[in-house]
Amino acid sequence: MEFLKAISAAEALAIISSFRVEPATETVALDDALHRILAEDILSAEDIPPFPRSLVDGYALKVKDIQGAKETTPLFLYVQGEIRIGEASRIELHDGKCVYLTTGAMVPEGADGVVMQEFVRAAGDAVEVTKTLHKGENICFQGEDIVKGAVVLQKGRSLSPFDIGVLSVIGRPAVPVYKRPAAGVISTGDEIVSVEEAPPFGKIRDINGHTITNLLKGNGADCRFLGIGKDTVDSIAGKLELARECDLIILSGGSSKGQRDYMADAITRLGGEILFHGINIKPGKPTIFGKLWGKPVFGLPGHPNSCAMVMMRFVLPLVRRLKGEEGYREKKMAGILGTNVPSTSGVEEYVKVAVREVDGECDVTPIFAKSSVISSFVGAAGYIIVPEGKDGYEKDEKVEVYLFPQ
Amino acid sequence: MEFLKAISAAEALAIISSFRVEPATETVALDDALHRILAEDILSAEDIPPFPRSLVDGYALKVKDIQGAKETTPLFLYVQGEIRIGEASRIELHDGKCVYLTTGAMVPEGADGVVMQEFVRAAGDAVEVTKTLHKGENICFQGEDIVKGAVVLQKGRSLSPFDIGVLSVIGRPAVPVYKRPAAGVISTGDEIVSVEEAPPFGKIRDINGHTITNLLKGNGADCRFLGIGKDTVDSIAGKLELARECDLIILSGGSSKGQRDYMADAITRLGGEILFHGINIKPGKPTIFGKLWGKPVFGLPGHPNSCAMVMMRFVLPLVRRLKGEEGYREKKMAGILGTNVPSTSGVEEYVKVAVREVDGECDVTPIFAKSSVISSFVGAAGYIIVPEGKDGYEKDEKVEVYLFPQ
Repeated sequence: MEFLKAISAAEALAIISSFRVEPATETVALDDALHRILAEDILSAEDIPPFPRSLVDGYALKVKDIQGAKETTPLFLYVQGEIRIGEASRIELHDGKCVYLTTGAMVPEGADGVVMQEFVRAAGDAVEVTKTLHKGENICFQGEDIVKGAVVLQKGRSLSPFDIGVLSVIGRPAVPVYKRPAAGVISTGDEIVSVEEAPPFGKIRDINGHTITNLLKGNGADCRFLGIGKDTVDSIAGKLELARECDLIILSGGSSKGQRDYMADAITRLGGEILFHGINIKPGKPTIFGKLWGKPVFGLPGHPNSCAMVMMRFVLPLVRRLKGEEGYREKKMAGILGTNVPSTSGVEEYVKVAVREVDGECDVTPIFAKSSVISSFVGAAGYIIVPEGKDGYEKDEKVEVYLFPQ
Repeated sequence: MEFLKAISAAEALAIISSFRVEPATETVALDDALHRILAEDILSAEDIPPFPRSLVDGYALKVKDIQGAKETTPLFLYVQGEIRIGEASRIELHDGKCVYLTTGAMVPEGADGVVMQEFVRAAGDAVEVTKTLHKGENICFQGEDIVKGAVVLQKGRSLSPFDIGVLSVIGRPAVPVYKRPAAGVISTGDEIVSVEEAPPFGKIRDINGHTITNLLKGNGADCRFLGIGKDTVDSIAGKLELARECDLIILSGGSSKGQRDYMADAITRLGGEILFHGINIKPGKPTIFGKLWGKPVFGLPGHPNSCAMVMMRFVLPLVRRLKGEEGYREKKMAGILGTNVPSTSGVEEYVKVAVREVDGECDVTPIFAKSSVISSFVGAAGYIIVPEGKDGYEKDEKVEVYLFPQ
């Protein structure tokens, strides 16, 4: 096949982000909803709280009855009764009276304030109130937290522990979410053996299959590792067939030009289309993106560093779209470079960095390593991007660090 | 029981962090190791790469043979053979000769550089080399990435996707990790019903049980929700009995003083000990911490806001110790306050904030809400801390935002 020209990172992202995806939906129990993506706006069918509640232990009263009450000139109110927590009360408060409440208990009809126990002295079947209140003091009114009919959580949101608390209080034991995208992952290369094997001399164990599946797993995909393909179009096409039902297919391997050709040829032989082959980035240039059976397919470089960087920059944004996630916020931190970072002009370059907090500032140190060196990830916290048109950064320049997914 | 005096946040953290924990260990398959905590230092039993590898497609040669080679004055080398990727080769390179290699293939004995194909012209059974190399160019040497015997990952580390790639390449299909701590979670309160129930008038659905279990789940604990206890010492003690085998017990509930007493009484009746009852923080003051059956037990406030804040500030650090995690780095970002933040002196105060990026700066807006209002979590990205001795912050002051766990 004819080779396509390498394109810029921006062009590659534009092609990937215009790939049409339609995530399916399902309903899951609230207990299983953590980090799932809401497939519908969630409206509350109820006011929360559903009745006015006391925020303190004390006496519900009419604020007009205690105007001017002070420590030295307390005002008397008769105790009309008590409402316990959890108790449904139909008490209607009368003028000049009060009702004892504990925190969280229902505030009776007619009351517009609750005075804390600390500002009250008992006096037989009455109490002396030693403090004036403003209207509404120490009451959480019906619907003050969530009004019936309001949108409480929006479609596309990744559900946090707090969101799940909110869904609970409005009575949603099950929620509509997007299905996890199924990703098929294939390693390729005659030199690759699995982690269980002792590699014969000349071969090495698979790395990319593990890094890719775990990056996907950590990002909410349902991942299937489909094995290690050999360097033939037949072998790779055979592995691709196993991924026919997946929503996303990721091949990796092929450090040499010959190996990369097998991946592209296998995709086209099965009726797929190569959308680009080569991005002007470093590392990661020989990246393939295409469409097979209507699904997105990536051919990632075999160098583990290149493979991991392309996963983070180009694949995970598509995974988030396949998940239905909206409003994702890249995890970044600002820092100051401790050394110069030279860069190759004409490519977008990714440089791994270590970060260290010094006097409240974030000190950024680049980690330079050959593209084959994977141990450099262990000490790095993230990476910085040198844009295509920039010749690197200088010491003391402010940079943005993209934090690695954990 | 007699009430203990409220202590400072620093004292509370000191008591919690001196609670002795001894996480147990287990061995898991590499595929199940994401986000698990390493229980041992991992040493490599092999050099990685296990043999010198070519970083490019080209010809392995002796650098001394091509000193001075240029486009205009190329130097000739006879082609001695080819080493394919994955192939075990015992070729020894002779002076004045070269061997064809693809990227990732073994570099033959005697070679100390690989010239890229682009700088070579074929000439029968020889090649013309048009470029000089430095020693070692385009070779990843044996052990250059990881030296046999080196510690590649340290005990206490939370395993990232990249770490799992490293474990794979050094041949560890199973890894020693700490067991996930088992946490027993109990909600209490006569006013609380489960999410499945339509709350009778005067009652509300449980929130804290859901928020707590999901915060724990997201932080790697193995969580068991043990149900909703009533406001009696008997009922709470009965629920606590169900948590006897847990490594951590978390009660929540009790907005009123009476309710809180039941929690403390149930712990002591079962032979437990209250280590503190009350922290000078806002929200979250009525927090209980104790020891029951040798295990840490928390009694968290019933107000959902207070409960969630105490979980993040006081409980999760202990969860990380129970997990065996070391070197955890709090997720924070620096920002500039858009408004004044008043605060109560004499307490450490937590204020939820929204953040917005404006021209590369992070704009921080406090979200003020009553302690009962949980929907305020939905729009917040994290919180700021006003220390005990500080009367708040002023507009334009620089603050650190502690990001909410996702």
